[in-house]
Amino acid sequence: MIEISPTPLPIAGVRLSTVCAGIRRVEHPDLTLIEIAPAASVAAVFTQNVFCAAPVTLARQHLATHAARLLVVNSGNANAGTGAQGLADAHNVCAAAGEQLGCPATQVLPFSTGVIGQRLPAEKITAALARALEGLQEDAWDAAARGIMTTDTVPKWASGAVSVGEERYRITGIAKGAGMIKPNMATMLAFIATDARISAPDLNTLVAALAERTFNRITIDGDTSTNDSCVLIATGRAAARPLLPHTPAWHAFARALEQIFADLARAIVRDGEGATKLVTVAVRGGNTTADCLRAAYAVAESPLVKTALFASDPNWGRILAAVGRSGAQGMRLEDIAITIGEVPIVARGEPVPGYAEADVARVMQGAEYEIAIQIGPRETHVAVLTCDFSFEYVRINAEYRS
Amino acid sequence: MIEISPTPLPIAGVRLSTVCAGIRRVEHPDLTLIEIAPAASVAAVFTQNVFCAAPVTLARQHLATHAARLLVVNSGNANAGTGAQGLADAHNVCAAAGEQLGCPATQVLPFSTGVIGQRLPAEKITAALARALEGLQEDAWDAAARGIMTTDTVPKWASGAVSVGEERYRITGIAKGAGMIKPNMATMLAFIATDARISAPDLNTLVAALAERTFNRITIDGDTSTNDSCVLIATGRAAARPLLPHTPAWHAFARALEQIFADLARAIVRDGEGATKLVTVAVRGGNTTADCLRAAYAVAESPLVKTALFASDPNWGRILAAVGRSGAQGMRLEDIAITIGEVPIVARGEPVPGYAEADVARVMQGAEYEIAIQIGPRETHVAVLTCDFSFEYVRINAEYRS
Repeated sequence: MIEISPTPLPIAGVRLSTVCAGIRRVEHPDLTLIEIAPAASVAAVFTQNVFCAAPVTLARQHLATHAARLLVVNSGNANAGTGAQGLADAHNVCAAAGEQLGCPATQVLPFSTGVIGQRLPAEKITAALARALEGLQEDAWDAAARGIMTTDTVPKWASGAVSVGEERYRITGIAKGAGMIKPNMATMLAFIATDARISAPDLNTLVAALAERTFNRITIDGDTSTNDSCVLIATGRAAARPLLPHTPAWHAFARALEQIFADLARAIVRDGEGATKLVTVAVRGGNTTADCLRAAYAVAESPLVKTALFASDPNWGRILAAVGRSGAQGMRLEDIAITIGEVPIVARGEPVPGYAEADVARVMQGAEYEIAIQIGPRETHVAVLTCDFSFEYVRINAEYRS
Repeated sequence: MIEISPTPLPIAGVRLSTVCAGIRRVEHPDLTLIEIAPAASVAAVFTQNVFCAAPVTLARQHLATHAARLLVVNSGNANAGTGAQGLADAHNVCAAAGEQLGCPATQVLPFSTGVIGQRLPAEKITAALARALEGLQEDAWDAAARGIMTTDTVPKWASGAVSVGEERYRITGIAKGAGMIKPNMATMLAFIATDARISAPDLNTLVAALAERTFNRITIDGDTSTNDSCVLIATGRAAARPLLPHTPAWHAFARALEQIFADLARAIVRDGEGATKLVTVAVRGGNTTADCLRAAYAVAESPLVKTALFASDPNWGRILAAVGRSGAQGMRLEDIAITIGEVPIVARGEPVPGYAEADVARVMQGAEYEIAIQIGPRETHVAVLTCDFSFEYVRINAEYRS
């Protein structure tokens, strides 16, 4: 069992630094470095958006062939939709950072988040590198969580320690949202580190599996970003022996790590643009897991459902309609059941006789609850996190050039 | 060429009547009858939502085996998600109407629109039937267009006449939106009539083909309704000889009819819930038409794109990101071009040098414009109509139990 920490625990072998580089706003922390000690393993998953940003292209290339030593993360500009110029800009940042740290550009991974389609002010980043490198320290995760924010209203981090046999491992991660969130193999930006020792191939398998079950089960607006990246670092400083797959120790550690991933994913949705509620859409019983996911995302992304969530309105007809158009195969109305909170609303495809709408409205006035939907008799099950659609969502996205 | 009429032209063989039955509100026109003379052909397409409403189930059954004589259309209640009781209620309305008109229940087609999941007050409808039948007249299309409205702010009708050889045909149609609109084989509710003579099988083919090209190319919120129905009536009163497929006369008539369908589809999106803009998303060049549609709908339904439309913000990065996550196959960034209005913004995957954002903002401040997106080199082409996402959308759907 993981012991959750009230503050982000430093991870031996990882140092961080966040400075103001003036990328989009002055006096705003927007450049974060994450230095990784030699011999650590680093793995990542990236967006499936085919028009991925320049830094994603470069980070993927570098990671495939070299041991990463430094992550350079900027907010305020996504360096996406910037063509060949964008690739050159990202490369120049890596080269300058590598030169100052004393490693080749290919051991530097670039990450960007912010406005799409504007040229990255690479010279502002390179001008701030020396200052940022000077400030590297182990106990700077909270500042880093702030440095990667865009429309996020709160910094997001999760941290804990887990004892596995005789070893004790720390895990700390940070992430950012808060719009263009429907991760597909990874989320907007998440960086998670542990002092466990894990081989690079095993770490690759682990990050993909955990991202699939956590970051890939959230949606704020259904828009998969061009910059989604999730990086997992294992420094190996806590133990001489590596964790090996298919052992009890591996499973215990992986469970702890999954909780950190899941906490960060929840935090992203809770801070979704304009969000006032965090709602779990749990779907079970479909012919396949993919069918359950279709139904869950149809509900979780329906603007009509999401405005009803905002209004705390038990308008279950909108849920039924969304499930019905989801494309999930083999559904029969007589198998459908809908429960909100603990209140059964629909059973065997029909309204539950005598159910009190006021009871459901009370559940929906809460900040967090679950909508459970049965779409068939099978054992399949998925859960997707979503949030509501508020006036504030429109204001943020009609006023902010994100 | 169709000559568009400034008022809805009566169609010989079709009489209409709209009354206040008190279904949801008092003194509000909510019950519309459309009487069809014997020997007319009637065809329809219905929602693909697998949890279709009770009236859709019944109308589909009746139409498959019997010549329709009367359409009974109520607003204020969708009779969807109402189970066996809903089917019984819809049947009772048909039986009562048939009895008063002098035909079996199976020659009556029921249609409902409004709140999902509440029992249809069938007795209010049957109580108003006699009054409604008394009021039937040919020149009552405008009142009918008002009688089927829910969150619509304006009645929607389109009408015109077309000369084909020696014959002259009239076409008049009505439709309603304004939310839960992403028709899939048909739209919310549309009733179109002509005095041309067309066999029932030919009319079936025609309504499906035209709905596919018009109503099935619009989206307001991506939510396919449980009650979508599009009915096409051909009374045959204008000519003794039927129009036959694959003749020049058929093609000329079909083009005219398509314009009426398209005008109604446009009117639905223009009056989309909270909409302030009508935007055509035209996508060409994909590997297949289906790939073009994926890209077009990804853009047309992206909450981030739609809030940028509301703000008249030329945030083309959101468009690029939506295309990139659409699932359209075989796209390469270097093939992508984006034009808004007449202003090229992206060419060969990169921002057009020196393009003036102010020019695009000016286009986007207009009430209607086109976003044209090239996603590949092929000859494929689709166009989808959408609208923006405004504060008013949230207000309507958070306050109105629709």
